[in-house]
Amino acid sequence: MHSLFDQLIPRENTQSIRWDKYGQDVIPLWVADMDFASPPCVIEALERRVHHPIFGYTYASETFQATIAQYLLKRYDYPIEKEWLVFIPSVVSGLHMVARYLLQAGEHALIPNPAYHHFKMALEGVHHAYSNYHFQLVDGRLTIDLEELKRLVQPNTRLLMLCNPHNPGGTVFTTAELQALADFARARGILICSDEIHADLILAEHISHVPIGKVTHPQQGFVSLMSLNKTFNFPGMGLAWAVIPDPKLRAQFTKDLHTLIPAPHLLAYTASMAAMQGGSAWHEALLTYLRGNLACVEQWVSQHPQLQMAPLEATYLAWIDASRLRVSDSPQDITQAFLQAGVAVSPGQQFGSPHYFRLNFGTSRALLSSALERMSSVIKKRS
Amino acid sequence: MHSLFDQLIPRENTQSIRWDKYGQDVIPLWVADMDFASPPCVIEALERRVHHPIFGYTYASETFQATIAQYLLKRYDYPIEKEWLVFIPSVVSGLHMVARYLLQAGEHALIPNPAYHHFKMALEGVHHAYSNYHFQLVDGRLTIDLEELKRLVQPNTRLLMLCNPHNPGGTVFTTAELQALADFARARGILICSDEIHADLILAEHISHVPIGKVTHPQQGFVSLMSLNKTFNFPGMGLAWAVIPDPKLRAQFTKDLHTLIPAPHLLAYTASMAAMQGGSAWHEALLTYLRGNLACVEQWVSQHPQLQMAPLEATYLAWIDASRLRVSDSPQDITQAFLQAGVAVSPGQQFGSPHYFRLNFGTSRALLSSALERMSSVIKKRS
Repeated sequence: MHSLFDQLIPRENTQSIRWDKYGQDVIPLWVADMDFASPPCVIEALERRVHHPIFGYTYASETFQATIAQYLLKRYDYPIEKEWLVFIPSVVSGLHMVARYLLQAGEHALIPNPAYHHFKMALEGVHHAYSNYHFQLVDGRLTIDLEELKRLVQPNTRLLMLCNPHNPGGTVFTTAELQALADFARARGILICSDEIHADLILAEHISHVPIGKVTHPQQGFVSLMSLNKTFNFPGMGLAWAVIPDPKLRAQFTKDLHTLIPAPHLLAYTASMAAMQGGSAWHEALLTYLRGNLACVEQWVSQHPQLQMAPLEATYLAWIDASRLRVSDSPQDITQAFLQAGVAVSPGQQFGSPHYFRLNFGTSRALLSSALERMSSVIKKRS
Repeated sequence: MHSLFDQLIPRENTQSIRWDKYGQDVIPLWVADMDFASPPCVIEALERRVHHPIFGYTYASETFQATIAQYLLKRYDYPIEKEWLVFIPSVVSGLHMVARYLLQAGEHALIPNPAYHHFKMALEGVHHAYSNYHFQLVDGRLTIDLEELKRLVQPNTRLLMLCNPHNPGGTVFTTAELQALADFARARGILICSDEIHADLILAEHISHVPIGKVTHPQQGFVSLMSLNKTFNFPGMGLAWAVIPDPKLRAQFTKDLHTLIPAPHLLAYTASMAAMQGGSAWHEALLTYLRGNLACVEQWVSQHPQLQMAPLEATYLAWIDASRLRVSDSPQDITQAFLQAGVAVSPGQQFGSPHYFRLNFGTSRALLSSALERMSSVIKKRS
């Protein structure tokens, strides 16, 4: 059956970082935006808003805040107060704000490895000490080892960073797992920061996203970072929000907001509002299509005994172990070889695991298949 | 003659900070955006761009950079290298970036008073010492007193902040004045930061904007902050750029860019590009209309001997001295009285001069006239 998402929309001359970095001969499966059109309701809302010709200073209206509260309640059964919301330009800014404003000099953090590189950068940018915690494959899921966390914790540990669903690896943490992490943190006076940008990109059936705020104790400090940018594919013009119930923590977090760090862009409110109000059918169709793409990737991996991949619960980012592949020189070698064959993937090194690579399958199935064919030819030559 | 700018476009339900803060019964002449539609070329470009439905991660293209370089050459006869440009979300972010990343602990800055409040906030936000320099009325222009600067300079002074054209007060500094400031700074190893956001809003005839880079010595450090947000009236979705020829300074300035501080929004590139390419006729018409509004304000001030205003060379922000007005309690009293009469202006206190107020005349002449009438009734009651 033909899908809306099968259409390949040319992205030349749109200043796309993803498409322009390596030129048009390379299929770009690296940086995490998708090649799909945003929902029609988003396009229509943007058209309506730009038709009103004044673009002055803008704030997050009560209605916008209430719509987010309703969205969180409906999707995650998660009630919040509007006052807990802080609007920020992106989740990346949010990660850096947490490291900069919620940790004091001399304090220590626990961060995931592998992880999206901004976790590490956020801590290193302000010269805070951190330790990496790792994942273990248990019953086909990459899970956090609480015993490792207990070994890594230090007297000055004050922050535990989570990525849920995890990027890369795609784990969707269960209520029980999150509860154990929250208890661990609470017993030690550790603040939790949870990056939940992939919350609405769960591909596995019968599992749901659990916001960190649903398992924390009322007096426990946490920051939940959320955004619709990834789900509805507008990361180049989106916004994010932090959920921070604790007023003191919220004040610390917002220290440089609206001064050094700008408020979100006017049209980002428009896009996010439209997506929440009218994007659900498109969203379901997207998930169906991504499941099909994931099946292609899984089949492809299974055809190459040199590759391994844990079952992916969420995201459109396949995390593939290439350590069995014969590589001539360095771990980067395989990424380079794929690039020479016309496919750009993200080197695992970027996420702290050099022998892996991350493959963005948020594109048309036809283009994905071409890319996988090109990559197969590289793997065959090296087997 | 009827003008395009006479049309009052309703801004209800557009999340306008300017219009929503005090409700619809108050004429808002405070925060600095205008009630005018952006140029048709900007609206059309935005419509075209949102019609392309993918809004992924975006960068400033070579063409965009080259267009800025051409714009600066054409408008100010100011040649730059594309490599000198750094794209930032706003000039406000830029002011805070300068204070945070270009000054070391223990260093001191010279900042203007009166001035847009973010100058002071930028220094205070990072706990740097600063001294205020003032303006004197010479031949009808608010000018900087170099002798005062020499008295204020300290052995640890490393930054001179300028606002050119000045906000509030509207002074457009001449080549000779800027040259003297540049020489003063260079002789003392002081870096210059020049906020030039109002460069294209010069209302006085026969004077031109001079970017700070045109008068500095080739080896002299400076940061010129520029943006089209004010001129073309899209501050809620615009972008800014810094011109920084010195590579070391540029690297320091960009320390947290793309991490804590986001890159500009996709549609901000679209709007700025369109404004540079097709906005000049609209821009000329805007300046003509603003000159008419300024004449109204000047006439109104002249009718009230309790008020004084120096001739305004640039900006749509009248800076009015109300110190002769009988006020019962505090300097804020007059702003409050105007508000009760249905007009919101910015209290001078925000800019460091409590007995002044700032009036934004970037609105339709009819609305401006109504506001001035309401304000007259307040002044009459107090005379």
